[in-house]
Amino acid sequence: ENQTKETEPRVRLPVVPKGITEPKFTAAICELQSHLGGENVVLNDQPLSDGWYMEHPNTHDAFNLLDSEETVASALAYPGDTAEVQAIVLWANKHGIPIYPISMGRNLGYGGAAPRVRGSVVIDLGRRMNKVLDINANDCTCLVEPGVSFYALHEDIKSRGYDNLQIDVPDLGGGSVLGNALERGVGYTPYGDHWAMHAGLEVVLPTGEIVRTGMGAMPGANTWQTFPYGFGPLHDGLFSQSNFGIVTKMGMTLMPNPGGSESFMYTFPKEEDLAQLVEIIRPLRISNILENVAQLKHCIQEVASLGHPRSTIYQGDGAVPIEVIRRQLSMLPCGDCTWIYYGTAYGPKHIREYKLDIINREFGKVPGARHIDPATIPVDHYFWARHRVASGIPDLHELAWLNWMPNGAHVFFSPVSSITGRDAEKLLQIAKQRHQEAGIDMFPAFCVGLREMHLILNIVYDRGSATSRDAATKCMRNMIDDAAKNGYGEYRTHLLFQDQVMKTYSWNDNALEKLNSRLKDALDPAGILAPGRCGVWPARYRGRGWEL
Amino acid sequence: ENQTKETEPRVRLPVVPKGITEPKFTAAICELQSHLGGENVVLNDQPLSDGWYMEHPNTHDAFNLLDSEETVASALAYPGDTAEVQAIVLWANKHGIPIYPISMGRNLGYGGAAPRVRGSVVIDLGRRMNKVLDINANDCTCLVEPGVSFYALHEDIKSRGYDNLQIDVPDLGGGSVLGNALERGVGYTPYGDHWAMHAGLEVVLPTGEIVRTGMGAMPGANTWQTFPYGFGPLHDGLFSQSNFGIVTKMGMTLMPNPGGSESFMYTFPKEEDLAQLVEIIRPLRISNILENVAQLKHCIQEVASLGHPRSTIYQGDGAVPIEVIRRQLSMLPCGDCTWIYYGTAYGPKHIREYKLDIINREFGKVPGARHIDPATIPVDHYFWARHRVASGIPDLHELAWLNWMPNGAHVFFSPVSSITGRDAEKLLQIAKQRHQEAGIDMFPAFCVGLREMHLILNIVYDRGSATSRDAATKCMRNMIDDAAKNGYGEYRTHLLFQDQVMKTYSWNDNALEKLNSRLKDALDPAGILAPGRCGVWPARYRGRGWEL
Ligand SMILES: Cc1cc2nc3c(=O)[nH]c(=O)nc-3n(C[C@H](O)[C@H](O)[C@H](O)COP(=O)(O)OP(=O)(O)OC[C@H]3O[C@@H](n4cnc5c(N)ncnc54)[C@H](O)[C@@H]3O)c2cc1C
Ligand SMILES: Cc1cc2nc3c(=O)[nH]c(=O)nc-3n(C[C@H](O)[C@H](O)[C@H](O)COP(=O)(O)OP(=O)(O)OC[C@H]3O[C@@H](n4cnc5c(N)ncnc54)[C@H](O)[C@@H]3O)c2cc1C
Repeated sequence: ENQTKETEPRVRLPVVPKGITEPKFTAAICELQSHLGGENVVLNDQPLSDGWYMEHPNTHDAFNLLDSEETVASALAYPGDTAEVQAIVLWANKHGIPIYPISMGRNLGYGGAAPRVRGSVVIDLGRRMNKVLDINANDCTCLVEPGVSFYALHEDIKSRGYDNLQIDVPDLGGGSVLGNALERGVGYTPYGDHWAMHAGLEVVLPTGEIVRTGMGAMPGANTWQTFPYGFGPLHDGLFSQSNFGIVTKMGMTLMPNPGGSESFMYTFPKEEDLAQLVEIIRPLRISNILENVAQLKHCIQEVASLGHPRSTIYQGDGAVPIEVIRRQLSMLPCGDCTWIYYGTAYGPKHIREYKLDIINREFGKVPGARHIDPATIPVDHYFWARHRVASGIPDLHELAWLNWMPNGAHVFFSPVSSITGRDAEKLLQIAKQRHQEAGIDMFPAFCVGLREMHLILNIVYDRGSATSRDAATKCMRNMIDDAAKNGYGEYRTHLLFQDQVMKTYSWNDNALEKLNSRLKDALDPAGILAPGRCGVWPARYRGRGWEL
Repeated sequence: ENQTKETEPRVRLPVVPKGITEPKFTAAICELQSHLGGENVVLNDQPLSDGWYMEHPNTHDAFNLLDSEETVASALAYPGDTAEVQAIVLWANKHGIPIYPISMGRNLGYGGAAPRVRGSVVIDLGRRMNKVLDINANDCTCLVEPGVSFYALHEDIKSRGYDNLQIDVPDLGGGSVLGNALERGVGYTPYGDHWAMHAGLEVVLPTGEIVRTGMGAMPGANTWQTFPYGFGPLHDGLFSQSNFGIVTKMGMTLMPNPGGSESFMYTFPKEEDLAQLVEIIRPLRISNILENVAQLKHCIQEVASLGHPRSTIYQGDGAVPIEVIRRQLSMLPCGDCTWIYYGTAYGPKHIREYKLDIINREFGKVPGARHIDPATIPVDHYFWARHRVASGIPDLHELAWLNWMPNGAHVFFSPVSSITGRDAEKLLQIAKQRHQEAGIDMFPAFCVGLREMHLILNIVYDRGSATSRDAATKCMRNMIDDAAKNGYGEYRTHLLFQDQVMKTYSWNDNALEKLNSRLKDALDPAGILAPGRCGVWPARYRGRGWEL
């Protein structure tokens, strides 16, 4: 393995939440143990171990950007059901202790399992609340607890023999179906917009009341997962990317088997092809000829996804020169190129062909475009991992990138733009300049939603090196500012940049941020739930130096 | 015309909002006139005229269920822009005067333009704020003000020559694109779920702040209409079916021209075919073989949609006997039958054929199913109105029903269920029993969304007759209760039943209703905005005898 970072000795740990004395904290923890059982409330008093993807820590961010003892939990609680979550919330209100719920804590690249406020008690919901509560093969829906991963849901469906159902998965299958949807994560089948595809929540409010949204509020209804609305105001949105409640159950729609899926890969020679390509993609995507979240990747990712350390191809400082990358490419199935498009068509063969023909004709308009025949692509190539993911089968190939640097860690820059050549070029230019300044490799992928695209820029850094972490951090901060100046905002961001990003959504004197504050104070008067998450601070913390 | 109801003389009008003296109210109105101009703030001191669809009143509900002076405005205000809406809101806070915003007030069957609290000042936004602010033919989006009707948007798109765009329309084209979406109204193309298809709001909060949701909060962004989310908590849902804000602008996605649309009509002989049919429809709908909101109508609607008074076929009291209906049917294109399915396939010819073949095979499993060849259907038949609507072309044919009774008025019973034969039968049984008791004709139509169906039951009553109104009201109240006992809740309801319906969403000791109260008090401390809408009351009104 490509890891050199040692498990660090504890220096400033264990930590106690600010504003409470150690004896009071210890007494409070004992009290919580008496509710949940001693084994379900544990202090974070062991060395911080980063583990790896399948054994990730819940005590801190395994991909730390700050000193690893900075964003850490004081303790961990493992509720077994909604009533225990409620008990924790009431306890937190009583003692004024900040709590930070996670579903599985695999929010890698966005803060992992770490709480925003140092010393929060992390509520690891997924450890014990990990049941698939229902799968309805007729309605094509399911109801899950926070600890159900994409892998687990997929397995559960297969084991019940429901061949007519498939799930949607993001790049990595180990995340929580529920946690990922709350973060408004994205996958690669036509059901890729996870938030849009959810239906119904059960939520413990910051003051302890338990609500069910939508049709969940109708006793005896069988529509909680089939009709996303209900009657009167809609509340679900309040609980995504927020700290207004702890979600304990979520309904999710499942995709009916489309009758086949067929992936394809095109390459385009020049960096300047980007604008033309994006203009070609837009109408195809909006009209659903391109049916899944389109991925247009920079060629460097073909090399990184091989899983070899960058030192095997380049030993210098700074970014790997493009000539070095190009030399590698010519040995790969894609051949020499700059952009690679991964996509998938769905349906029976003749329906797929209808769409694939149009795509082939349109992509062919870019001079030098090449369709790579899947029959020529080796079985262990990244292409087939993409195909699995786009067919709803969880995968881990994407972890290969971690080998790029020693102690490889990820942080994502994820700005949203409209699908235009101009926007794509502008974002690329911002990223290029800031990456060059920082001397780091740039990995851009344009993920085209329906009418918008996320540029997902994966910065791979050495988390064992303060220099590498600082370079990544600085590059992020600069890109966020540059993007905002040009009207681009992040769809989601790492814990440490959430204040900065929220501040960029500033229209009319930060009216939306003020609305968030108003809602936060109404719903969480004691300010105990995930203070600072997504830049939303409760009154108790606001303007007291917590913002980053 | 089939109208006998006279414009009634004023008896209890003009009205002044409860809790304010007439002189104070008059002074407040003068003050508002000084902000907006005298012609833009008018007292409701003229006789109440019901008009007709194209000249509908904004002073009261033209389809009154109570005495027509019951749910009426004290005055009307016509803001010209968002700043004037803000001025009205601040004024209402200052004087404690309830205000009730409407976009166009064509909410027929659900309360029309009427305010919930008698004597509210109705803010008729649509009168002056009626601009299509933007149409983006590349992104397939638009931005509209409250006064843009489906007709107007359709015309606007045509006049700009954008043949690649189409809108989605509900049965009647005269409603507001924005108002209908806020009510979570439904249309009949693949973009039929109007709330799901909106993108971005501008809202004046009840305390006067102006917010833009989603990417609207990012200065300089071109993504307000292309990306529906933004960063952090999502607020849009708070402003639908609610009284938490006044929406002054809304983004809407437009459907790219699908390359053709082809409507079809099937009939099924027996009432008992319902369960089998619904079971056939579900998988076809979820997999998008049936692409638009499927409508399964009871045959009586074929007769009603001819636009003849029921007295031409039956002169007795009570419901028209089914034999009488059947006799009429045999003279119509549908022939004798019980259920009629109206649907539309989209795409180029060979793609439509692929889907139509599957549909034909599946529907053919119901004994006696008949496909009615469109070539045999006269051009003025309802079928072609459905085809226009399903192709995004606004229409008014649906008004024909108003002729069924003298002074014909509508009220809708709209419960949601899963798409199962059992649910369809149960709902039909509830409706049948309550209609029989009330002695009124029953017009059920099952509108199948994606995983759920709304039963839309249109009660046609004589609004000039207190007996007829009371029968309709009683039938509604009973059906709402019966439905709730069986786990069915309304997706939307008439002003007068909103308290009753909200009370049925009672899970966990009315937890959701309490959350609404909490949000209402935080956002509207003075309790001035549309008190009581959708069963949400501000503190000032709560528990003081306002609920119905
Ligand atoms: C190489 C790589 C590729 C990736 N690709 C993708 C991708 O394709 N798509 C994608 O979406 N992401 C991607 N990610 C990011 C991330 O790994 C996933 O989004 C992952 O699913 C998030 O972790 P989780 O599901 O365990 O959520 P969690 O970590 O459990 O939750 C995330 C956050 O949501 C909040 N939260 C979680 N549960 C609750 C709850 N029950 N109540 C209230 N708040 C809660 C918390 O603030 C928490 O920190 C990628 C990461 C890497 C490193
Ligand atoms: C025969 C018939 C068929 C129908 N078919 C359909 C159908 O197919 N689909 C369908 O959806 N409806 C249908 N309707 C119901 C209704 O006519 C439409 O929904 C119509 O579009 C609603 O009226 P409106 O658009 O003018 O909305 P409005 O009356 O302007 O708004 C409705 C309500 O929303 C709120 N509201 C409106 N604007 C704002 C704002 N800017 N800010 C805050 N709150 C606001 C108010 O409480 C208002 O009372 C039908 C009615 C009839 C009689």
